[in-house]
Amino acid sequence: MNDLLADLRIVEFSAFVAAPLGGMTMAQLGAEVIRIDPLGGGIDHYRWPVAESGASIYWAGLNKAKRSVALALDRPEGRELAKAIATAPGAGAGIVLTNLPPLPGLDYASLKTARDDMIMLRLIGNRDGSAAVDYTVNAASGFPLVTGPQSEKGGTAPINNVLPAWDVATGLYLSTALLAAERHRTRTGAGQEVVAALADVMLAMVGHLGYVGDVQLNGRSRPPLGNDLYGSFGRDFATADGRRVMIIALTPRQWRALGRATGLSDALAALGPRLGVDLDTEAGRFDARDAIAALVAPWCAARTLAEIATAFAGSGVLWGPFQDFATLVNHDPRCSTANPLFAEIDQPGIGRYLAPGLPLDFSAAPRRPTRPAPLLGEHTDQVLAELLGLSAPAIGRLHDCGIAAGPATPSGTR
Amino acid sequence: MNDLLADLRIVEFSAFVAAPLGGMTMAQLGAEVIRIDPLGGGIDHYRWPVAESGASIYWAGLNKAKRSVALALDRPEGRELAKAIATAPGAGAGIVLTNLPPLPGLDYASLKTARDDMIMLRLIGNRDGSAAVDYTVNAASGFPLVTGPQSEKGGTAPINNVLPAWDVATGLYLSTALLAAERHRTRTGAGQEVVAALADVMLAMVGHLGYVGDVQLNGRSRPPLGNDLYGSFGRDFATADGRRVMIIALTPRQWRALGRATGLSDALAALGPRLGVDLDTEAGRFDARDAIAALVAPWCAARTLAEIATAFAGSGVLWGPFQDFATLVNHDPRCSTANPLFAEIDQPGIGRYLAPGLPLDFSAAPRRPTRPAPLLGEHTDQVLAELLGLSAPAIGRLHDCGIAAGPATPSGTR
Repeated sequence: MNDLLADLRIVEFSAFVAAPLGGMTMAQLGAEVIRIDPLGGGIDHYRWPVAESGASIYWAGLNKAKRSVALALDRPEGRELAKAIATAPGAGAGIVLTNLPPLPGLDYASLKTARDDMIMLRLIGNRDGSAAVDYTVNAASGFPLVTGPQSEKGGTAPINNVLPAWDVATGLYLSTALLAAERHRTRTGAGQEVVAALADVMLAMVGHLGYVGDVQLNGRSRPPLGNDLYGSFGRDFATADGRRVMIIALTPRQWRALGRATGLSDALAALGPRLGVDLDTEAGRFDARDAIAALVAPWCAARTLAEIATAFAGSGVLWGPFQDFATLVNHDPRCSTANPLFAEIDQPGIGRYLAPGLPLDFSAAPRRPTRPAPLLGEHTDQVLAELLGLSAPAIGRLHDCGIAAGPATPSGTR
Repeated sequence: MNDLLADLRIVEFSAFVAAPLGGMTMAQLGAEVIRIDPLGGGIDHYRWPVAESGASIYWAGLNKAKRSVALALDRPEGRELAKAIATAPGAGAGIVLTNLPPLPGLDYASLKTARDDMIMLRLIGNRDGSAAVDYTVNAASGFPLVTGPQSEKGGTAPINNVLPAWDVATGLYLSTALLAAERHRTRTGAGQEVVAALADVMLAMVGHLGYVGDVQLNGRSRPPLGNDLYGSFGRDFATADGRRVMIIALTPRQWRALGRATGLSDALAALGPRLGVDLDTEAGRFDARDAIAALVAPWCAARTLAEIATAFAGSGVLWGPFQDFATLVNHDPRCSTANPLFAEIDQPGIGRYLAPGLPLDFSAAPRRPTRPAPLLGEHTDQVLAELLGLSAPAIGRLHDCGIAAGPATPSGTR
């Protein structure tokens, strides 16, 4: 959290990962981000992982530092209020971020009738408007068929990423696009609609990383290589105490460090002439990867993780242990309040736990305390009063008519 | 490509994925991005995949639309020129993006002496300054130990993502941060240094997605589930013709569509009472996933991919086929010039192939032709003349002294 974008107001109609992450990135940069949900919550309101109460740790994680407004978006009066909030005055306001099909009156053209300089960022699945989510986009990307060890694969055993990487990338493209569009508005007065297709983010990245060119120019694509790096040296090794470490040599410096730290310099150097490859190049180390690994593996297997860590400390070897989520959370000091990225927060309905802020340190914008996610509808009344100037009786009437709702029970459960 | 940021100038000292992607995102938004490399190229200049000539398709992919300057950065005179380029006047200039250890005279403090409103974005590995790359950060994230099928895992068989997802996310955090810092400078006149640690990006995302809370609050973390979704229904299925499809039911609408399209509505509905779960909830479908899959699998196995595509067309089923890179490139119409994302470009030293532009459509900034990557040193002379006002003889002297270099042979090989 910092205050860099404190003069921006963004209204979000969203669910799942990408759009909420884009909005949360703005919120953690100080923008006022108002997520408007239907009464009872959006389709992501109960996604796993959940707390014992049933409240979603996932939802809380992706909506930190936002304000929450709950309106009956299935009724015209609810949508009118949402439109009024989205188009409310303010030089840094009039920005909508959404990944949901536009509701009547809440599409870009309708919002623009109320505020001519409207900016809308709209995430869709495929460019043609058909549905796509991280899982289907990933299936089409080619990556699952080259993930995991080669021996177990016959072109029919895809392995999906667990990290929703396409959603994450798309969320951050949206935050970049929002600032680019707002910059343009500041200079010209003109708003605009920005459309991002999740599938296009995948396609762009497959192209940027060279896989499209490899197929088109070389008529091939990289095979599954397990945890080996493609075109360089890197692999995972087992330790004496049942752990695994990733060891990498991208640069000549890292390569020499590996030889020195393991005492294998001479044995490794002898591989070059024997195999007829130049081990000072990445391609040479890739070609010799099995022979290199055959020397490094017994060295690792004879040592515990702690012994390896000692041997590699300060050596210049590029390496790291594999660990599971529990070890990361309970034993890695980077995942603790010793890291300014993290703060202990009290998340209403869920409990007290470590929450990350923004993974960026701005020297001109000090880090502020990480704020929890709102309860659903926590800011409904405040926003109706502040932005639309509604009186307490008017807001009360909206509650009575089932048009607006405040926070549900703190447990967050249905 | 568009012209949204045409008044910005960014100087990049970079290698590999994250920083080059952040800079390229700015370049594809119209900014002038000057990548300054050492003579002969940076440590990523020959990374795989490569063309037959040895030129890197990977490097070309991550440096499209930039200008390239090659200077002897190991010599004071080369670094002085780099500093002069980085700090050259211009309201939208004075921005440096780097993931390399700062060279003498090119750290933030030194640049600030020449230009007080300097913005520097600096990517490091770990916050404490120690080295980390996508592979080591990923190993620490917990994800590799829950990737792939459960049966083959005993806590010792991590499976890495092939997509460098942490690098991609970090590159896009950098583009977001750059625009936030530049916005601040426009308003206040103040530059700043922004530091991002690759490990912090991973930690933030593990937290945002709920895995930190799951461990801290529930004392557990999700197990490996193969390609099953966590907390909802989604799995891959084999087709009669040896392909695989991903089928997902996140929402009640998608769930009902799956029943209708497969003719399995009644059989699926009967699972609820039999198993004692509510299949209208994501958690219920997750609990019943094996029973659901047992009905869907034979339906898929009896049909070819084409038959499944026909059955699902317009049905509302959320699904997609797995495909390898070659099928994506050669047979998926989204990966062709039928998609405005792509253009055929002539990449000097490599050849003619499909290159993606920006996966964002701005209604107020028409899409411009995708520009290829430069040859190493292609713009050295232009930049020295335009930004530093050097005369042709002065530039000639720099070449003669080995301080500056123009493009290498078009093949791009050493």
